[in-house]
Amino acid sequence: MSYNTFGRVFRFTTWGESHGPALGAVVDGCPPGLTLSEGDIQPFLDKRRPGQSRFTTQRQEPDQVRILSGTFEGRTTGTPIALHIDNVDQRSKDYSEVAKAYRPGHADYAYDAKYGFRDYRGGGRSSARETAARVAAGAVARAVIPEVSILAWVEAIGGDAIDYANFDAGEIGNNPFFCPDAEAAKRWEVLVDGARKSGSSLGAVVACEATGVPPGWGAPLYAKLDSELAAACMSINAVKGVEIGDGFAAAALTGEENADAMRPGNDGKPVFLANHAGGIAGGISTGQPVRVRVAFKPTSSILTPVETVTREGEATEIMTKGRHDPCVGIRGVPVVEAMVALVLADQKLLHRAQIG
Amino acid sequence: MSYNTFGRVFRFTTWGESHGPALGAVVDGCPPGLTLSEGDIQPFLDKRRPGQSRFTTQRQEPDQVRILSGTFEGRTTGTPIALHIDNVDQRSKDYSEVAKAYRPGHADYAYDAKYGFRDYRGGGRSSARETAARVAAGAVARAVIPEVSILAWVEAIGGDAIDYANFDAGEIGNNPFFCPDAEAAKRWEVLVDGARKSGSSLGAVVACEATGVPPGWGAPLYAKLDSELAAACMSINAVKGVEIGDGFAAAALTGEENADAMRPGNDGKPVFLANHAGGIAGGISTGQPVRVRVAFKPTSSILTPVETVTREGEATEIMTKGRHDPCVGIRGVPVVEAMVALVLADQKLLHRAQIG
Amino acid sequence: MSYNTFGRVFRFTTWGESHGPALGAVVDGCPPGLTLSEGDIQPFLDKRRPGQSRFTTQRQEPDQVRILSGTFEGRTTGTPIALHIDNVDQRSKDYSEVAKAYRPGHADYAYDAKYGFRDYRGGGRSSARETAARVAAGAVARAVIPEVSILAWVEAIGGDAIDYANFDAGEIGNNPFFCPDAEAAKRWEVLVDGARKSGSSLGAVVACEATGVPPGWGAPLYAKLDSELAAACMSINAVKGVEIGDGFAAAALTGEENADAMRPGNDGKPVFLANHAGGIAGGISTGQPVRVRVAFKPTSSILTPVETVTREGEATEIMTKGRHDPCVGIRGVPVVEAMVALVLADQKLLHRAQIG
Amino acid sequence: MSYNTFGRVFRFTTWGESHGPALGAVVDGCPPGLTLSEGDIQPFLDKRRPGQSRFTTQRQEPDQVRILSGTFEGRTTGTPIALHIDNVDQRSKDYSEVAKAYRPGHADYAYDAKYGFRDYRGGGRSSARETAARVAAGAVARAVIPEVSILAWVEAIGGDAIDYANFDAGEIGNNPFFCPDAEAAKRWEVLVDGARKSGSSLGAVVACEATGVPPGWGAPLYAKLDSELAAACMSINAVKGVEIGDGFAAAALTGEENADAMRPGNDGKPVFLANHAGGIAGGISTGQPVRVRVAFKPTSSILTPVETVTREGEATEIMTKGRHDPCVGIRGVPVVEAMVALVLADQKLLHRAQIG
Repeated sequence: MSYNTFGRVFRFTTWGESHGPALGAVVDGCPPGLTLSEGDIQPFLDKRRPGQSRFTTQRQEPDQVRILSGTFEGRTTGTPIALHIDNVDQRSKDYSEVAKAYRPGHADYAYDAKYGFRDYRGGGRSSARETAARVAAGAVARAVIPEVSILAWVEAIGGDAIDYANFDAGEIGNNPFFCPDAEAAKRWEVLVDGARKSGSSLGAVVACEATGVPPGWGAPLYAKLDSELAAACMSINAVKGVEIGDGFAAAALTGEENADAMRPGNDGKPVFLANHAGGIAGGISTGQPVRVRVAFKPTSSILTPVETVTREGEATEIMTKGRHDPCVGIRGVPVVEAMVALVLADQKLLHRAQIG
Repeated sequence: MSYNTFGRVFRFTTWGESHGPALGAVVDGCPPGLTLSEGDIQPFLDKRRPGQSRFTTQRQEPDQVRILSGTFEGRTTGTPIALHIDNVDQRSKDYSEVAKAYRPGHADYAYDAKYGFRDYRGGGRSSARETAARVAAGAVARAVIPEVSILAWVEAIGGDAIDYANFDAGEIGNNPFFCPDAEAAKRWEVLVDGARKSGSSLGAVVACEATGVPPGWGAPLYAKLDSELAAACMSINAVKGVEIGDGFAAAALTGEENADAMRPGNDGKPVFLANHAGGIAGGISTGQPVRVRVAFKPTSSILTPVETVTREGEATEIMTKGRHDPCVGIRGVPVVEAMVALVLADQKLLHRAQIG
Repeated sequence: MSYNTFGRVFRFTTWGESHGPALGAVVDGCPPGLTLSEGDIQPFLDKRRPGQSRFTTQRQEPDQVRILSGTFEGRTTGTPIALHIDNVDQRSKDYSEVAKAYRPGHADYAYDAKYGFRDYRGGGRSSARETAARVAAGAVARAVIPEVSILAWVEAIGGDAIDYANFDAGEIGNNPFFCPDAEAAKRWEVLVDGARKSGSSLGAVVACEATGVPPGWGAPLYAKLDSELAAACMSINAVKGVEIGDGFAAAALTGEENADAMRPGNDGKPVFLANHAGGIAGGISTGQPVRVRVAFKPTSSILTPVETVTREGEATEIMTKGRHDPCVGIRGVPVVEAMVALVLADQKLLHRAQIG
Repeated sequence: MSYNTFGRVFRFTTWGESHGPALGAVVDGCPPGLTLSEGDIQPFLDKRRPGQSRFTTQRQEPDQVRILSGTFEGRTTGTPIALHIDNVDQRSKDYSEVAKAYRPGHADYAYDAKYGFRDYRGGGRSSARETAARVAAGAVARAVIPEVSILAWVEAIGGDAIDYANFDAGEIGNNPFFCPDAEAAKRWEVLVDGARKSGSSLGAVVACEATGVPPGWGAPLYAKLDSELAAACMSINAVKGVEIGDGFAAAALTGEENADAMRPGNDGKPVFLANHAGGIAGGISTGQPVRVRVAFKPTSSILTPVETVTREGEATEIMTKGRHDPCVGIRGVPVVEAMVALVLADQKLLHRAQIG
């Protein structure tokens, strides 16, 4: 089945291919009366926009969003919000090689195995270009949860991690890597440049923190907040792993080391002495910052020829020319933020559905 | 919101508390005509059953399942299958301490913050006892996907990992740890015994492999096979991380290292030269083994007193007496297998809905 | 597909066959803290219970409900509520005829055409016995919407309608027909007795009114309040038509005749001068009483032999012996009430999800 | 909640307001490889298009559909199909009266009661203009069910019904009323002209028949084929009643009169001697024609002043100037066909999900 809708009460549906005329999202279930215009959405798209540095794909897309429905006089009406982004730089090129042979690591073979037929231009529906629609929808989600701040950054590229002692949130916007550690950013410049020039690619880890989430959002058992976050982040192109709080590191701890002890706070709510849990217990938020880590594999498009097969089952080699991100995880930062916002907006509405 | 249903076409709904009279699952959407009796389900429950060794909780539950609907003359009818398991060893004890103070790492505070009210006996709905219902439902799922074999094992306990050079699937059933490495099993005996005796607990990593999944199952974009697996596994009690294929390790690779090259196979389908992707590309199965890794945190119930607060906001200390698993990840093995089976059964039916 | 769950946020799933050991419902998404015990549910089951007069089936079922989860100390916890009803009077009889030949008007042929296999004992899953589970779930729904009063009655049997000039709500409980018109009740006694004695059956129309629904519940466009009510009522066994407000009569009116004019009310809300719309405009409640009419076909089980075919495709005749309602619409009254309650509870929670 | 998606496996989501820049639908879950271009969709939109005779609204909309995604080289790819229709004749007019006072019979008051805020231009989201998107989606659905023929017609206008003895399917396209009875069409010309000239309006009944539906589509219990059809048709603007087969007339029959007897057919399948059931038993198709009847209320926009209230709660009178259909049921014909097609396409895919 094709399933292009995410969410339960606050829902969005995306459509569009890499090389079609446009792409978009329909956001449904948004509360009425929220201030919303294109100007509230565009800055997030601009963060994700390609072609802004030599470290991302050189495809030039303005990614100008238009709101086609669901607002009136600058406010949401509570009816579906259609977000529309035109594709303008679908470069005319020769796709005959991609049409014929399967690029390893790409969805080419899987799509053909499933559908028997695919739009191979630029990856079609499987292209990360779809994430523009998510980022636009995520901006609407942020309007639903003004009490929450969401911030993501790149934590490691190609195995080279930041030093959290150097963490400076203000630094994230100062470099093309969404890197909060100025030292690491300098190293990554060399690292990513090297990969780019050699036609190679690198993986990355993105971390995201949502502060201001009140205790109580989430749901046992199959709409747990962490379960929804895992689904949301794992659905992003190139993602291969998701952690909440300490994640896999928690598997190496003892119960004593992993305990998030509590003390009475001044406002009657507990103060936690640690946050191994990443702000979620039993699938429900605890009021601590919600913490997610996401692993992006290296871009599968590389200039080194790799053995593969054709649609007809013949052996061949393929190298992926064209415009690609040397490290797709970098532009994953605004996408992770968007998905976290979309999950939290949905959970907020679900919470008040049941609790009032 | 409370959301206790999982799946899209093949769905199951679970109910029941740790100390209520019973728990169960309703499995809906199952194809008709499949051979199914209690005898097909019980062996999986027996794997998960507590009280079988000194390394798991000493609560004695026979976990005898009854099928109350949906089968006739030993075959499924296509109507909902009600699975019922009585609780028999809800030990009568004093819950006044748990009722009053929040156990760190448990869902106690989050439930109270959400619902303002909770069944505190044995953790109520947040108890891992609910996973018995998942395992029962998972056995039905296996009947839907006879072409698939699913096998999980414990890969590491408390940071002590197996050596894959020693991997022997036949060994998994020979020790109380679902450990495929006989050497590691011996070490873990000492390790877990130590934790048990000192009232401590340990985390674990569970790995799972599904072979026989044909290429083509899955769906762009928000019902991707990996996204569904992530949601399914992250919804298990105590899970804090999920990886597909190389997972976080892929984030440290280059594109060349991560490429799963293909060669023509004898049957016309490609033969893959590696499986970094864990059998999934673009959210769709490739025909390679589907590989998932799941991180379980250490059991939060420990005998060391930890600072916490009472419902009234007073400072206190709590240590969790009672019957607990020193390493909850061990009994997670049949639960992970069940969740993987449930996702794959659903995806198989979704696939033929769209493709025929 | 089998789909045995109804609702979006407030959901229930039913299971069980006519002649299985038990049947039940799992109600999920219920707000926490509501007072709920078996005693709150049983009176509604007692209204639907068979064997209470000679005008309904003589099957004797106490329909005693047990709550197996989701409540604690007499209040809902917000987790799934499992409702369990044992079958006790599955009379042992010879089903060989029903197993072999299709009863016209029943689901026998359709089930075999779909599933290739069916539990033919008493109709299996297609039996109206399943509606006991709906009535139990409906009682939980009523606890969610204390502001709403729901009342249904039989408006016509076999084409003989009540006179609304004689309408007396107090009369509904005074006769075995849920008839608000004492005169009509007397006529129906003769009518239904005649049908019963001759082995025939009669259709009926059930009307239902929900007062106290505030303006604003409902949703454009595919979860409209009227659309959900239509789905809910059409899903009841033997129902062939649903009307909101004037229904088909509105199709014969002019716009002037059909207008529900408004005047300012004392409380700031409009007072409506008519209710042709049945309390719903644009899929959203207006604050007027919500009015639904439901058509029940005559029971398909009759003692007159009817031409039919066997599973092997041979011509035969069948007459349906056994215990049947001569007018299945009568016991439809508590079922319609339950379905209306379930829809309204869901819509109340959906409304506050979006609006807060 | 706002809920603008319909369907379970084959799903569509609509968006757009009467006076916004455009409207559209996203169709998801469509099987791949189906021939589909704008030319396959446009004819259905042309049937629904306003301004084609003096008996419908004079708003001039070309309703030209564009496919923005989901097809490649003239065939569906299995990914979401975005259908886009520009609004071109949003006449600039003075909406101050509608903004201020509630039009009786319209959704004005209900929307304000729900959302506290609405796009009042031309009814905004509650306008029947949205049905253009349904008709476009319905054309895609037809491609999914080539084995089924769907035909709808107007059966009665303002209480004046056709004579089925005169039924001629070929006649339906010969008059502006989708009327299969040439005599009735002549009478309706006078009738509707009278209503139009006097600024009044008329209700209508639309009948629809789907032939070629194989036995076995549908699902117990809450996705019954009839339940889904009821929800689908009741969600259409101005609809107040839905019947399957004999509908309310069945409530006046005896079991003998209502029996659909069967005889062996030449192909092994039964031949039915009647179709009181409308092709559905137990929620599952029987292979007979599926028959639905739908009641449309008269257009609420009339030139006769009606008492109403303002947003501020003041008494006033309103008459609805502007461009309106004197009988909205007429243009309901292609909309009913579309909704029936959409339900059947979904049920076909759901059936093969479970049964294979």
